Amino acid sequence: MTDADHGSGARRRGRPPRTESAGTRDRILVAAREEFSERGYEKTSVRGIAKAAGVDSALVHHYFGTKEQVFEAAISVAFAPALNAPAAIADGPLDGVGERLTRFIFGVWENPTTRTPLLAIIRSAVNNEAAAAVFRRLIAAQLLRRIAGQLDLPDAELRAELAAAQLVGCAMLRYVIKVEPLASVDLEQIVRRVAPVVQGHLTGP
Amino acid sequence: MTDADHGSGARRRGRPPRTESAGTRDRILVAAREEFSERGYEKTSVRGIAKAAGVDSALVHHYFGTKEQVFEAAISVAFAPALNAPAAIADGPLDGVGERLTRFIFGVWENPTTRTPLLAIIRSAVNNEAAAAVFRRLIAAQLLRRIAGQLDLPDAELRAELAAAQLVGCAMLRYVIKVEPLASVDLEQIVRRVAPVVQGHLTGP
Repeated sequence: MTDADHGSGARRRGRPPRTESAGTRDRILVAAREEFSERGYEKTSVRGIAKAAGVDSALVHHYFGTKEQVFEAAISVAFAPALNAPAAIADGPLDGVGERLTRFIFGVWENPTTRTPLLAIIRSAVNNEAAAAVFRRLIAAQLLRRIAGQLDLPDAELRAELAAAQLVGCAMLRYVIKVEPLASVDLEQIVRRVAPVVQGHLTGP
Repeated sequence: MTDADHGSGARRRGRPPRTESAGTRDRILVAAREEFSERGYEKTSVRGIAKAAGVDSALVHHYFGTKEQVFEAAISVAFAPALNAPAAIADGPLDGVGERLTRFIFGVWENPTTRTPLLAIIRSAVNNEAAAAVFRRLIAAQLLRRIAGQLDLPDAELRAELAAAQLVGCAMLRYVIKVEPLASVDLEQIVRRVAPVVQGHLTGP
């Protein structure tokens, strides 16, 4: 608390190595997220990330490994709160799960802090197989499979994916391609039409 | 017929200028489609397309204009049959339009000849605003708006877009990101679940 009040440059020398190391790690992750968001996966290099973070490339490799691993780490951090949400989404009455998932996904997209890394991951995943693999691990395995796990139905994974497909497609057309009228229409109007579809995929006959 | 049988190199000199010009134009479009598919929109240049087609860059500009216009022309040609389909889709009983649209879109994706340019347009549209504008004009205006036009409902455009969102999302997860089990599941199983959703968006309450 007192350290923070002194500003970022204060008492540098007195800081224990553990904290210094955590600070460097975070700085690399922030730089990585910005580089991947701005340039896309293919044009981003570990060297460029290191430069933006003000460290040596070797340190980036030391902390995270390959470019793919830096990408996965940066995305994981950006989505940490989102990836902890599935339990809360599947919590509560099952007949409201469609609306909760729909509101959660659109909430991530409407928030500029999470929209930027999400755009980065989609741009990268569409263009690059390594980035697509990260997308599959994070979104599919961590988010969809957890929701499917709560459904307790034989074809739960396919159901969760078809529900996700409706939401991914809406996000693509509204936020990425910006097709009108979908890009400008009031969010509540979309939720009203999409939530029952998501619900139907998840729990319908 | 006889000319074609003689092979592509035969009787070059005897060909009338009109045909020669059409041949060059087509060759540029084929080269453009391949370049855009392989490299994506941003990394493709008019110069690279001209080189692949064996012509001068000036000729590409002469026939088509800017890179964006070459892109639009190449995509339009690739999708000419698809873009003429909306009438047929909206034709017939309205309660089968969801299944007809669903089968049509998956048909385009399952066919390697149309899948490649479609992947190119999606990769490009996700990464580049000029390419996204082409996507909006071609897919949204030509395909969705025509289907909406046949529905004769007040919010027909939004309905068509939400239906398209379900299909776009399925295509993203099945063909682009390749999330399992959706990527490998039998197409008929998807159609059985998705067609009623598309129908609901288009004609439901």
